Amino acid sequence: MPDTIAFALPGTATDLEEGLALTPKFDADGLVTAVATDGASGEVLMVAHMNAEALSRTIATGEAWYFSRSRGALWKKGETSGHTQRVIEMRLDCDQDAVWIKVEQSGGACHTGRRSCFYRAVPLGKGGAAAFVSREDRVVDPKAVYKEK
Amino acid sequence: MPDTIAFALPGTATDLEEGLALTPKFDADGLVTAVATDGASGEVLMVAHMNAEALSRTIATGEAWYFSRSRGALWKKGETSGHTQRVIEMRLDCDQDAVWIKVEQSGGACHTGRRSCFYRAVPLGKGGAAAFVSREDRVVDPKAVYKEK
Repeated sequence: MPDTIAFALPGTATDLEEGLALTPKFDADGLVTAVATDGASGEVLMVAHMNAEALSRTIATGEAWYFSRSRGALWKKGETSGHTQRVIEMRLDCDQDAVWIKVEQSGGACHTGRRSCFYRAVPLGKGGAAAFVSREDRVVDPKAVYKEK
Repeated sequence: MPDTIAFALPGTATDLEEGLALTPKFDADGLVTAVATDGASGEVLMVAHMNAEALSRTIATGEAWYFSRSRGALWKKGETSGHTQRVIEMRLDCDQDAVWIKVEQSGGACHTGRRSCFYRAVPLGKGGAAAFVSREDRVVDPKAVYKEK
């Protein structure tokens, strides 16, 4: 496995925004937000987090790695399900605290078996509405791909 | 302005994932992560946060509202720059702690004047690389649209 990249510390706002040095602004927990979109459809597949090691491994290997806040553990996407994410392109945002990766997703990105974690839509323009209007079907059976759980 | 929706509290994991009740899982700071993508191109424009009031107003008005962590304030996108976001569709993710809005973005989403906040790409497959490879140009002059700052 590659070593963790020794990212330089974030500089001034101008350095962060206009510089060409990658200096991720990790939060108090050492994380940046990571958004994965489908390289073909543009659909948002999932929102998760990366620590320095997950970001380093993603850059080095071109496969998506994350850090699970609930499990407190580094995590290679698809290590259990086989539904890996090959990274087509990685971008960072203006203040370098969010990562966008365009990926080639095998199977489904969501642990519920859906292609995307965003499988429910919220109706707009209805002040008191607090229900979803639609829900997408599963593309895989989660019981079949997360056998050991 | 619409009242804040009284969102019900999140239930079990199954309720959160398979239910049709919108029960956002706000974090300890009362926030969910919000990702805005361009409804036409699929490009990720920005990653920000919403509190209950920002989420309520976005649902009620169909215009994007956020909560600024740095300013500690509710914020209508474009209130200063005029570069508003009309929401085409809103989705929530499996555990209801992240919101995806597809928007019609007027002008640029980024305060630096770029169309998207994600205007720099990171090279992949190079273990020690910690620099950006490209940077997109501004679409507007930030000095002209944020005059009062």
